[in-house]
Amino acid sequence: MKLGRLNHIGVATPSIAESIAHFAQTMGATRIHTPFDLEEQGVKVCFVDTPAGPDGLGGYNGTQIELIEPLSDASPIAGFLAKNPLGGQHHICFEVEDIDDARKWFEQQGKRILGPTRIGAHGTPIFFLHPKDMMGQLTEIMETPKDAH
Amino acid sequence: MKLGRLNHIGVATPSIAESIAHFAQTMGATRIHTPFDLEEQGVKVCFVDTPAGPDGLGGYNGTQIELIEPLSDASPIAGFLAKNPLGGQHHICFEVEDIDDARKWFEQQGKRILGPTRIGAHGTPIFFLHPKDMMGQLTEIMETPKDAH
Repeated sequence: MKLGRLNHIGVATPSIAESIAHFAQTMGATRIHTPFDLEEQGVKVCFVDTPAGPDGLGGYNGTQIELIEPLSDASPIAGFLAKNPLGGQHHICFEVEDIDDARKWFEQQGKRILGPTRIGAHGTPIFFLHPKDMMGQLTEIMETPKDAH
Repeated sequence: MKLGRLNHIGVATPSIAESIAHFAQTMGATRIHTPFDLEEQGVKVCFVDTPAGPDGLGGYNGTQIELIEPLSDASPIAGFLAKNPLGGQHHICFEVEDIDDARKWFEQQGKRILGPTRIGAHGTPIFFLHPKDMMGQLTEIMETPKDAH
């Protein structure tokens, strides 16, 4: 496998509204997408774009911040927030060309995959790898959106 | 302030050698820099480059992974590893054009800055902001290297 683009880092938050205010007012983010519910995953999601180069050179297709807020106490990130009430870094997500090839690759490496391949926040197939097999990092693998080519 | 480039995400590890093996063999990273000691910060550091676009399009100037291993038990990340023995995500680092302007900006916002402005792993001035004032994220602010323009 070849390392793909670092699509986003997932940041858990108790309140997407507060996180949007933080990124807009304190950090100066200007490209913040509309939040939406990803009910299958039990989370509300909001993407914050970052510039690809200094001074916005190269556009805003840098690695995104994915803000994630639990939709209920049953949400998989509710436990994370119980331990980290302010929120914090939750996962990293790398792109791959083909999700099925990637799944086979990680299975062959003996890495534990958390559940089935499913559709993620960018509308392409994703799966998650167990942090204990990934040097402590909950790692999402996502197929590159076709329109990114 | 305007949001700058997401320069890197800092990932604590008990062993940079093991993390390099993980990123090279499991994740397929091909551009891994030579590790070096950053003695003032009490850490050994190693940068892993990621591609800017799918299939390496746009070069390898995507957000980097900064692997950090403590140089001793007195290292600021020794405590993090005591709680997270496998390692994990430790901080995020955004670029700014001018470090002094950025420091004033965050001071005006009432954000706690951890220590003086100092030279960071990329050879430019940096400072850290307290995670409790930054929605749970230890946040590094770094002046964009002049050769990045």
